[in-house]
Amino acid sequence: METHAIDIYLDHAAATPVDARVLAAMLPYFTERFDNPSAPYARGRAAKQALEDARGRLARAIGAKPANVTLTAGATEANNLAFGCVDGPVAVSAIEHESIMAIVEAREHATIPVEPDGMVTPAAVQGALTPRTELVSIALANGEIGTVQPLRAISDVVRAERRRRLDAGEETPLYLHTDATQAAGLLHVDVSSTGADLVTLSAAKIYGPKQVGLLWARDGIALRPLVLGGGQEHGLRGGTENVAGAVGFACALELAIGERVEECKRLSALRDTMQRTLVERFPDAVVSGPRKEARRLPHLLHISFPGLEARRLVIALDRRGVSVGTGSACAASKMRTSRTLQAIGLDRSIADGSLRITLGRPTTEEQVRDAVDIIGDVVAAEYARVAAQHDWSEDRGNHHG
Amino acid sequence: METHAIDIYLDHAAATPVDARVLAAMLPYFTERFDNPSAPYARGRAAKQALEDARGRLARAIGAKPANVTLTAGATEANNLAFGCVDGPVAVSAIEHESIMAIVEAREHATIPVEPDGMVTPAAVQGALTPRTELVSIALANGEIGTVQPLRAISDVVRAERRRRLDAGEETPLYLHTDATQAAGLLHVDVSSTGADLVTLSAAKIYGPKQVGLLWARDGIALRPLVLGGGQEHGLRGGTENVAGAVGFACALELAIGERVEECKRLSALRDTMQRTLVERFPDAVVSGPRKEARRLPHLLHISFPGLEARRLVIALDRRGVSVGTGSACAASKMRTSRTLQAIGLDRSIADGSLRITLGRPTTEEQVRDAVDIIGDVVAAEYARVAAQHDWSEDRGNHHG
Repeated sequence: METHAIDIYLDHAAATPVDARVLAAMLPYFTERFDNPSAPYARGRAAKQALEDARGRLARAIGAKPANVTLTAGATEANNLAFGCVDGPVAVSAIEHESIMAIVEAREHATIPVEPDGMVTPAAVQGALTPRTELVSIALANGEIGTVQPLRAISDVVRAERRRRLDAGEETPLYLHTDATQAAGLLHVDVSSTGADLVTLSAAKIYGPKQVGLLWARDGIALRPLVLGGGQEHGLRGGTENVAGAVGFACALELAIGERVEECKRLSALRDTMQRTLVERFPDAVVSGPRKEARRLPHLLHISFPGLEARRLVIALDRRGVSVGTGSACAASKMRTSRTLQAIGLDRSIADGSLRITLGRPTTEEQVRDAVDIIGDVVAAEYARVAAQHDWSEDRGNHHG
Repeated sequence: METHAIDIYLDHAAATPVDARVLAAMLPYFTERFDNPSAPYARGRAAKQALEDARGRLARAIGAKPANVTLTAGATEANNLAFGCVDGPVAVSAIEHESIMAIVEAREHATIPVEPDGMVTPAAVQGALTPRTELVSIALANGEIGTVQPLRAISDVVRAERRRRLDAGEETPLYLHTDATQAAGLLHVDVSSTGADLVTLSAAKIYGPKQVGLLWARDGIALRPLVLGGGQEHGLRGGTENVAGAVGFACALELAIGERVEECKRLSALRDTMQRTLVERFPDAVVSGPRKEARRLPHLLHISFPGLEARRLVIALDRRGVSVGTGSACAASKMRTSRTLQAIGLDRSIADGSLRITLGRPTTEEQVRDAVDIIGDVVAAEYARVAAQHDWSEDRGNHHG
């Protein structure tokens, strides 16, 4: 009877705890090193130095120049800042994050269809471009089904269109933005190798603090501030800087990169065990996302149990001490059908029974073993309940028919 | 020889350390209670509950309903959000914070003149209003010279104009916004008694975390989000919520309010001692801001030493271990002439030698005693240096003239 003691968190794509090492790095900036980086005395200059050190470390970690890194209060803010660089039509994939969808809703936009495994092909991007398109935005990795996009090939399409415009004397700009929030710490993120012109990163999903993010923008892209103020962040983000947050972000990104290769190996092995065990027990289960390991986030398993309701599964698992999501946390809380699953053409009866399981740094082998048992039991119980209901209504049908 | 050990921070209007009790309240939300408030399981719901508890406590502390409180990533963001409620002309005082000035720069705006003590009179507000004015913004207390504005009387002017428009069948809205960032924790801030329609507050200046703030808006004011995203904050601020920040903010505001009366008494006594001692030693020194205790922030001393350069004073004090500002930190770092001091009509030769000294929770009687001695010595040394230079150039004048 130790069921009540179980607390297995398997929703690391929704939120990650702040790593103890990150928190330790942040703490002095709440207390003794709390100064305003704009203050003119030594204490203030030290705060400014700490901020710029953090920016430098973040930049180095993604192969960028510090001057091209704007610190923001979160990835969603960074995405909003990115889209502010143009006024014209934009093109986004059908499986972008809620924040991107919210931004483009009010703007002229094209939706780029995806393959059944969530892949955005360069051809699909090509098909969505018009001579008026000014921004293409494709997340480096999808947070729901784990698809890693061929961003480099997509950037070739964007670059080719840019060249065409240049040759034709057309002056409409065209940029490629990628939200690398779900990819950071799991994939190699180097701004030049992605081929993107704008890159969003978040501290909150790599064991850093929440509402701390950054936007990297290539030289020559004119960003427009969302928050006007005292000239901080080269005038792009007003307000006294969150030095503790920046220091935590830098520490979190460095740790994630340093431990990435080993950790991804560990997580994908655990994930594969989980997938294999569940699919063996439930042969009808559908795993979404790419098959190829290299095109798939290593910590993520998106699995659907046809005929079941995800909502009931999440609640039942929660009672047994296992926390899993059904998709993006925002959509999950509203318990609405996933746009992503519609976009990949997953049948509604399959999509409705989907769990998104994401392992993370604190996840142990033992937790995975326990979780697989609990998930198996809960799914089996649900199938038994549905079957019983079915028999019962057939029974009723026989009596009253 | 213990000079090197001195570290007296007297710039609490620029930044405050996070109170140990506030930090203790925040810590669990970085680590074990790190969940995404939008997540559907118990852990996520608990995070949501913690967020809403914090909002409820913040609302209660300022006499507001929780639904009218939007959490933002800082006061500057809250100010930007406030100004987004209208498109038309705005009117702001000549001594508003940099963030307000940056916002209005790009908009049609009137500047309301202030009295020599920094006071914004209701008559001056009346004089700046036109039938087209849609927003008036006056900080409850000025952070540079400490003037506490007669906001209630100003709100009567705004309300009268609103009534006139209603009677005349005019549909142009008119709101009063106040940035209460510098006032919070030192003055009683109750949204209904201020008479304002929109109120900005910051955690960063009341011993809470940086980049955490709020905007209160009266029922019926339609705000427009700056950051679009997953529907957080009733759609007004996208991005996973900073639960740790919200909890810290609530704790910081409650502490500040609970200790306010005693603390203000303590700080104003220390400030008065400092002022008296310095003015006795330097009878030419000019103290700016209102004379009346009730119209003046209790922790603030703005003192000018005619003929001296603030920049040199700040550097010399810094070397002796005393951190003071010259005005708002942003302006201070740029070492430019203060807009506020120009607006109150302070002569340039006086304004240029100004220090803004702000005491705070960690300030002790001993620190104030030491600081007064050090400031006195530094100012005296500067006067001696200037006098020597003067003599020398007169000397040179005599030789070469």
